Amino acid sequence: MGFTLDKRLQNDSILASTQHNIQIRLANDSRYFWLILVPAITHEGTEKAIHEIHDLPASVAANLWTLASHFSKALQAETKADKINIAAIGNVVSQLHLHIVARHHTDPLWPAPIWGQGTAIPLSPQERDKRLASVQSWLKTFSGKI
Amino acid sequence: MGFTLDKRLQNDSILASTQHNIQIRLANDSRYFWLILVPAITHEGTEKAIHEIHDLPASVAANLWTLASHFSKALQAETKADKINIAAIGNVVSQLHLHIVARHHTDPLWPAPIWGQGTAIPLSPQERDKRLASVQSWLKTFSGKI
Repeated sequence: MGFTLDKRLQNDSILASTQHNIQIRLANDSRYFWLILVPAITHEGTEKAIHEIHDLPASVAANLWTLASHFSKALQAETKADKINIAAIGNVVSQLHLHIVARHHTDPLWPAPIWGQGTAIPLSPQERDKRLASVQSWLKTFSGKI
Repeated sequence: MGFTLDKRLQNDSILASTQHNIQIRLANDSRYFWLILVPAITHEGTEKAIHEIHDLPASVAANLWTLASHFSKALQAETKADKINIAAIGNVVSQLHLHIVARHHTDPLWPAPIWGQGTAIPLSPQERDKRLASVQSWLKTFSGKI
């Protein structure tokens, strides 16, 4: 297929799973429980990275939103988040990626958006594995819904 | 139905159209060509505002994403945007609303996200009507696709 993950996304997040050609990645940042979904496809017949939601084939877009909604709900339930932030920005890393972030009134940047603010605090191995296990468990309640 | 638009959304944006119970609003800010989609529904059987994407009925969510993708594409074509930013944040105004913003490398905040940054510059009546006319024209190419 020719898909290559952007190096910054690869460095800053950990692959939890791939579902229907969409990578489900955990941001390596203990400040926020933060997932990043990356459709692992290129523009059809090329190596060219997809930058925009509207460049996704309709079926991939539908899968992306269904997955995003499922993870949004699970993340809020697990973290008791006051708000879930969902965004495809890509001003710095243009390869299409969708953020799903649990936010709390008590978090350091509330109510500002988190992107481009502050410095990530890497997850400890224990935190990382705990979050990855949560994502795996959420996938079990997902199968078949796409 | 009991839906009431949040006062801040009402003050800061202009209703361009309502499609399938989703308000399509134009942000009153000449710095960015910026649309805001607001599902005009409440939690079923109540007056309670919807805050999260995952609280939308699946059919409304599907319509929202289809509209968002259509407007994202049209906005990029019209503005020659370097990037479209799409986000449901809601840390300040919790009523669910989806931003679709045309961004350029030359814009004042690039590459930072725009939310909570700087001060809106209200549209002139001419700019406002021009943008509203664009939105109307994009709807003409949309009908029937949902």
